[in-house]
Amino acid sequence: MRWWGWGEDSGAIQLGDGAAAVLHAELGLGEGAGAPPISLEDVRLPERALDEGARRALAQAVGEDHVHADRLSRITHAAGRSYPDLLRLRAGDASHAPDAVVHAGSESEVAAVLAACSRAGVAVIPFGGGTSVVGGVEARRGSHGAAISLDLTRMDGVLDVDQVSLTAALEPGILGPELERRLAAAGLTLGHFPQSFEFSTVGGWVATRSAGQASTGYGRIDDLVESVSCTTPTGILRTRDVPATAAGPSLRELVVGSEGALGVITAATLRVRPLPEVRHYEAWSFSSFEEGAEAYRVMEQAGASPDVARLSDEEETRLSKALAYSGSAAERLGESYLRIRGQRDGCLAFTGYEGTPDDVARRRKRAAGLLRASGAVSLGQWPARSWLKGRFSAPYLRDDMLGRGAMIETLETASTWSNLHVLYRAVKKTLTSALASRGTPPRVMCHVSHLYRSGASLYFTFLARQEAGAELDQWRAAKRAAGDAILANGGTITHHHAVGADHAPWMTHEVGELGIEVLRAAKERLDPKGIMNPGKLIPEPPQLEAGQH
Amino acid sequence: MRWWGWGEDSGAIQLGDGAAAVLHAELGLGEGAGAPPISLEDVRLPERALDEGARRALAQAVGEDHVHADRLSRITHAAGRSYPDLLRLRAGDASHAPDAVVHAGSESEVAAVLAACSRAGVAVIPFGGGTSVVGGVEARRGSHGAAISLDLTRMDGVLDVDQVSLTAALEPGILGPELERRLAAAGLTLGHFPQSFEFSTVGGWVATRSAGQASTGYGRIDDLVESVSCTTPTGILRTRDVPATAAGPSLRELVVGSEGALGVITAATLRVRPLPEVRHYEAWSFSSFEEGAEAYRVMEQAGASPDVARLSDEEETRLSKALAYSGSAAERLGESYLRIRGQRDGCLAFTGYEGTPDDVARRRKRAAGLLRASGAVSLGQWPARSWLKGRFSAPYLRDDMLGRGAMIETLETASTWSNLHVLYRAVKKTLTSALASRGTPPRVMCHVSHLYRSGASLYFTFLARQEAGAELDQWRAAKRAAGDAILANGGTITHHHAVGADHAPWMTHEVGELGIEVLRAAKERLDPKGIMNPGKLIPEPPQLEAGQH
Repeated sequence: MRWWGWGEDSGAIQLGDGAAAVLHAELGLGEGAGAPPISLEDVRLPERALDEGARRALAQAVGEDHVHADRLSRITHAAGRSYPDLLRLRAGDASHAPDAVVHAGSESEVAAVLAACSRAGVAVIPFGGGTSVVGGVEARRGSHGAAISLDLTRMDGVLDVDQVSLTAALEPGILGPELERRLAAAGLTLGHFPQSFEFSTVGGWVATRSAGQASTGYGRIDDLVESVSCTTPTGILRTRDVPATAAGPSLRELVVGSEGALGVITAATLRVRPLPEVRHYEAWSFSSFEEGAEAYRVMEQAGASPDVARLSDEEETRLSKALAYSGSAAERLGESYLRIRGQRDGCLAFTGYEGTPDDVARRRKRAAGLLRASGAVSLGQWPARSWLKGRFSAPYLRDDMLGRGAMIETLETASTWSNLHVLYRAVKKTLTSALASRGTPPRVMCHVSHLYRSGASLYFTFLARQEAGAELDQWRAAKRAAGDAILANGGTITHHHAVGADHAPWMTHEVGELGIEVLRAAKERLDPKGIMNPGKLIPEPPQLEAGQH
Repeated sequence: MRWWGWGEDSGAIQLGDGAAAVLHAELGLGEGAGAPPISLEDVRLPERALDEGARRALAQAVGEDHVHADRLSRITHAAGRSYPDLLRLRAGDASHAPDAVVHAGSESEVAAVLAACSRAGVAVIPFGGGTSVVGGVEARRGSHGAAISLDLTRMDGVLDVDQVSLTAALEPGILGPELERRLAAAGLTLGHFPQSFEFSTVGGWVATRSAGQASTGYGRIDDLVESVSCTTPTGILRTRDVPATAAGPSLRELVVGSEGALGVITAATLRVRPLPEVRHYEAWSFSSFEEGAEAYRVMEQAGASPDVARLSDEEETRLSKALAYSGSAAERLGESYLRIRGQRDGCLAFTGYEGTPDDVARRRKRAAGLLRASGAVSLGQWPARSWLKGRFSAPYLRDDMLGRGAMIETLETASTWSNLHVLYRAVKKTLTSALASRGTPPRVMCHVSHLYRSGASLYFTFLARQEAGAELDQWRAAKRAAGDAILANGGTITHHHAVGADHAPWMTHEVGELGIEVLRAAKERLDPKGIMNPGKLIPEPPQLEAGQH
C-alpha cells in the first residue's frame, strides 16, 4: 500500500481529461488547487516511546526480524484510508504512528505479544490490511506510554477446507484476492467483495462487520462466520464450530464487530459456496430513486433478490455518467434510448447473479419480471460490466481527486424500508447545507446497495472543493452534521464501515448508556489493562486519554 | 395450562388402544405401572418467604390485584414442562415454587418490580408461557431469601405493524396462536411454530433462541428479531430498529438467548412475512438416514430448501408408524408400495412449502427434483398432512405415557454436515447404553429438522420403562451421558431448547471459561445484585447458592 494513498503504483488510475474537466466545473476547483503528497522524508513522526525492555520482550515473542521500527513501517501503520487520514498523510502528519510494528506469525505469538504489552503497559492496535475508513487502525496510545501495531499479514494460512459442510478455517491476515485464489483452487468462493477487497483481510472483515458488494446474495460477514477465535490479554475466546446454537447470548456476535478493542481475531471459520460457473450482471434504469427503491423492496420481500443489487439516486446517476463517459458515442446512444422511454434523468441500477447457469437463468427471469413490473427499463449488460470492471478502482480515483483540491468522502447507514426516504432526504439536506454554509457547496450522491426484508443500506458519496487551510475542519463539520442527522432520523451510525475512532462519539446514542456499560464490562474482563486498541469502538471517558501524542 | 402437565383438558389426547399396546410391548411396561398425578391439595409447597414489606412494594408496582400468592398460582409457576418437571409435579413436589406471582402490565411496571426486588433482595424469574424444558422458569432463590415469578402474559399487545418494512412491534407476553391471529388480520405471519407454539410467548422465544418447525424457511427467532428492549435492574437496554448495523458487537445478540438472567424482554420488533396463500406439505421415503441427510444437504446447499424439512431416522420412522396406525388398511397399502420400492425399512421425511401458489409450485418442483435425484421416493401429501395436523399434540401424549410408567424425553443438538453422523451415532449409542445399563433398555429415535448451509440439527426422542422409585436418577444418568457425548463429539449442548438450569453444567465446556467470564461481566453490570433468574444460563459458583429450598 502506498504510504500516502491507496493501493500500489502499478494499479493507480487517474481521471481522464474529460472527467477532470467535469469535476473541476462541478465543484468549482481552482486551477492548480490541491497539492501532491509531501515527500516521505518530510513526514513528521512522533518520537519513539517504546523502551528497550518492552522492545526486547516483543522481539522474544515474535523474533527479532519481526519487530520493525523504521520510518516507512511506522508511517504505513499510522493511519487507515479515510479522507481525513489521507489529508493528514499527504500533508506529512503521521502523529498516530505506532512506536513499532510487530508482525505475529501464529496465535501463540499473538498471545505472547499481548502478554508482553500487558506487562509493559503498551497499547496494541491490531492491523490487517490497514484500510479502515473510520480511524480504526491509527495507533492511539490511550493511557499508555507507547503503542504498537500488531500486523497480522504473516498469518495468512488456509487452515482447513470442509468441502462437505462448505466452510473454510482461515487465519486472519489473508488478503481478499489470495483468499479467493486459494478457495477457487478448491472450487469454492467466499463471495465477500468490499470496496477494499484487494487490500483488506479476513480478520479485518470479521472485526468490523464488513459487507461486500455481493452481500445481498452471499450475506454480510456476520452471516458468514461459523466460528471465531479471539485472543485477548486474558486468554482465548473460542466459539464452537456449529451452524446454530441456543446456548445463551451469542459470543460469536460479541467478537464479530469488536474492532480489536477486546482482542485479536486469530482464526475464523467462514461459510463458503461453490465457485459460480457463471456471473451475469445487467443494468436498469428507473424514473426516480423512490421508484427504484420500491422496486427493490418488492423484489427483496418476494425472496427474489440478486446477489448484487445496487441503485443510484438521480445525482449519483448523473454525475457518474458525466465522469465516466462524457460525450462518447455510446453515451449519446444510451441517452437517446432513455429519453424515448421517458427516463432521461432517471436512476441507474445494477443487478448481478452468480451461480450455476440454470440457477442464474431462473433467478434473473424472476427478478427481471418483478423489476419490469415496477417500472424498470433494461439497459443490458454493458453498463453493469463496466461497473464490475472498475468496482475496486474508486479509491485510486480518490487519490487523484485529492491531488486536484477536491474533498471526496463517503458515509453509510441503514434503515427500514418505511423510513428509508426520510433518512435519505435528511442526510442529503444536512450534508448539503453543512458544506454550502462554509462556501463549498457539495455534490451529494447516494446509492442503495444492500437489501434486507425489513430495509436497506444507504451509501452516500459527497464531493466539494477543499476548504484550503481548513480541510479537516471542513470534513469534521460535514461528518458531525451527517452523523447527528442519521441518528436523529432512525438510521444506524454505520452499516458496514464500523465505529473506529470517527464514529465513537455517536456510540452512546447508537447503543445507549447501558449498552456502552455492557461493552465496557466485557472489555474490562477481557482486557483489564485497556491495552487493546484504545479510543476505538467504545467512547472512553476523556480523563483516561493521556494527552496529545 | 394444567398444573401437572401439558395444555388444557379440552385439548388432551391419549394413545389409542393399539398404540398403547405397541408402547407397552416395546418398553416392557408392567400392567398398572405408572400413576396418576397426586391431587392438588397434596402438593408440597415451600413455606412462603416473602416478607410483608416486599409484598407491599410489589403491590405498589403492579397493583394489589396482580400479586398472587395462592396455592394454584404458585404451583403453576413452580416448573416448566420438561420430563423431570412433570415427574416432580405429578408426585407433588413443587419445591421450586415462587413465593408470589407478580403480573406486570407494562414496561414501567416491570422496571418497578425489578427496583422493588433489588431493594428487598428477592430473586425474579421472568415467566411467559412456562413451557421451558430445561428448568428455565423454576423459581430458584439463588443467594436471596425469596423468589417471585414475574408473569408477563398481561403484556400481550401488538404495539405496531409496519406493512412496508414487514415488521411487528410486540409486547413479550403474547401467546403464539393469538399473535398469529392478530398478524393474520393484517395479512401477515411470523411463521414461528415451536412444538410449544400454543402455550409459549414472544418473549420466551426471544429469550431462549427458539426455533420452530418452519424455521428452515422462515428462520430461527434469532433471524427474526429486528430490535429488542430488555429491562434490567440497572435500566433498559434497547437496540436500534434497523435491518443491519456494523456499530460494534451485537447487543441484540446479547439479549437474544439471555434467558431472563440479564433482564426481562419487554418488547421485540420481529420480522414478519405475508400470510401464505397456500401451504403444501408432502412426504418422502429414503432408504436410510444417511441417504436422507445427504439429500437434504444437497438441497440446502443448492438454496432449494422448503420451509419445513424434517427427516426421521429408521427407528423414529418405525416407531412412529407403529404408534400412529398399527395395522390399518392405509398402512398396509403404504408398506406394500415401499416394499416394492425397496424402502420397507427406510426413513420418513417431510417437506413443506408456504407462500404464493406460483412460489410454492416453483420451489416444490426444484426441491423435488433434487430429492428424487438423491434417492427419495414420494409418499404424497397424506402422511405429511397427518403430521401437520398433529404437530402440537406430542406433549399431550407425553402426559399419557407418563401415566403408563414410560419415560419419554427429548434433547437436541446441531453440528456441521461433515460431523453429523459421528455425532448422531455417539449420542444414540450413549443414550442406549446409559439406559440399558440400568436395566431399562430404551428406544432412541432421531430426526433432522433444521437445515443450514453448513450443517443441521439433530433432535432425539428417547423412551424407556420408568425406573420405579429412581425416576429422576434414571433421567439424570441419561441426560448427563448424552450431554457429555454431545460436547465430546462436536455438537452444541442445545440447538433450540436453551440452557436453563439443566444445561448450565455444560456451559463452561460449551463457551469456555473466558466465555463464562464475559457473560458474568455483562450480568454483573446489568444485574449487580444477581436477582435475575439465578442458577440459569450461567453456572454459578456453588458457594453462592443459598442452601436447599
